[in-house]
Amino acid sequence: MAKITLILGGTRSGKSVFAENYVLSANKTPVYLATAEIFNEEMKKRVDMHRSRRKSGWINVEEPIDITGEIAKHNSEQKIVLIDCLSVWLGNLLEHHRNVETEMAKLVDGLARLEVETVFVSSEVGLGIVPDNKLAREFSDYAGLMNQKIANIAETVFFVAAGLPLKLKG
Amino acid sequence: MAKITLILGGTRSGKSVFAENYVLSANKTPVYLATAEIFNEEMKKRVDMHRSRRKSGWINVEEPIDITGEIAKHNSEQKIVLIDCLSVWLGNLLEHHRNVETEMAKLVDGLARLEVETVFVSSEVGLGIVPDNKLAREFSDYAGLMNQKIANIAETVFFVAAGLPLKLKG
Amino acid sequence: MAKITLILGGTRSGKSVFAENYVLSANKTPVYLATAEIFNEEMKKRVDMHRSRRKSGWINVEEPIDITGEIAKHNSEQKIVLIDCLSVWLGNLLEHHRNVETEMAKLVDGLARLEVETVFVSSEVGLGIVPDNKLAREFSDYAGLMNQKIANIAETVFFVAAGLPLKLKG
Repeated sequence: MAKITLILGGTRSGKSVFAENYVLSANKTPVYLATAEIFNEEMKKRVDMHRSRRKSGWINVEEPIDITGEIAKHNSEQKIVLIDCLSVWLGNLLEHHRNVETEMAKLVDGLARLEVETVFVSSEVGLGIVPDNKLAREFSDYAGLMNQKIANIAETVFFVAAGLPLKLKG
Repeated sequence: MAKITLILGGTRSGKSVFAENYVLSANKTPVYLATAEIFNEEMKKRVDMHRSRRKSGWINVEEPIDITGEIAKHNSEQKIVLIDCLSVWLGNLLEHHRNVETEMAKLVDGLARLEVETVFVSSEVGLGIVPDNKLAREFSDYAGLMNQKIANIAETVFFVAAGLPLKLKG
Repeated sequence: MAKITLILGGTRSGKSVFAENYVLSANKTPVYLATAEIFNEEMKKRVDMHRSRRKSGWINVEEPIDITGEIAKHNSEQKIVLIDCLSVWLGNLLEHHRNVETEMAKLVDGLARLEVETVFVSSEVGLGIVPDNKLAREFSDYAGLMNQKIANIAETVFFVAAGLPLKLKG
């Protein structure tokens, strides 16, 4: 298994910028895998903001569901894939009525067989008041589980707050 | 006063699993004190999931309100009591219209007189948007206060994210 | 630029008490700059609670919008200004339809020209479920950006949970 890094943080915590700089510092060919499906203006603005920030030299790909397959297309020790982000991917799985546990297992198994380095960005959403909304609670539960699963196989885990990284593992 | 440990974390952060392993590593007789009142299917599933994970060898007790009294029943240096969790206990106090500050004071005073080691699990709920709902704000305020009070008398405090512990004290 | 400290934390995390003790330990004349506009009983209680906790010896001032101007009035190396808190200030800016980015730039530029030491308290609100409410999402985004900007120019940044500080920078 290649090196896996997980970067956790809240809304506008600076986790994506930190992740991009971290990826660039690896001196490999950087691949940006966006998981967002753009279905309204607010989403489009966020995606454009992220995209305009990245310098040239990145390979940009988009995949809302089959991220394991997309990562496998770049399976080279000379590449590093930034997946931004896992929480949006989870939202897509729920939206498309996929079995979340199956998809998570597929990702974990897939990563074990790949040699490309990966960096996952994921939101921490479980530190506020538990929402009234059943779907939001379900999302929050799956997000917590997913972060635990990736953290478990990751070599390095950071928690980013106010743009500042705190190393939790590695 | 015996050793007190506080383990903080968000929803599905892995705090309970971390707490259980921490308790087992003490090599004392482990007591699991569940504070949850089971009043619907969703709760039942959560409790069953937690219970099925624990190995045999635990003494399992349940007490939604008088946790000080229940801990006192196991007042032995050979035992260690895991209280899972304080936030559910707080919810029970509010539900049953108990005076929260009185009950917290009773817990803190009670612990000072006991010699059994205790490990408290508690949710951190104050790091999201302040809820519209007055009751939720009240819960959030009390939860923050309660965590401060227990952290103050604890020898060791951990914050768990994605299954990974970060030591805040001790 | 004088020393800037940022103290982040959730609701009732003990961040204000920690900040007050931190300010007092500087052995300068402490200035307490409250940003809250008191418009209901719940707010009044919170403000009174904070105020009654502080010992005499503090210069107490209130300014909901022009905090840069207020800090500038105390521009002395013998003083230290505690701004409590940035998130309430952000709420005031939105309430009064000010341009948030302009006001943030004014604060950052202002601080660069002052020699008075400052300590900012700010809430971390981005670690829960993303709210349904568009205004709350906007607040959350601005709050994250603001915390990043101040963390960037700060010499020292703490994250406080359950009354316990974790140093993120410095």
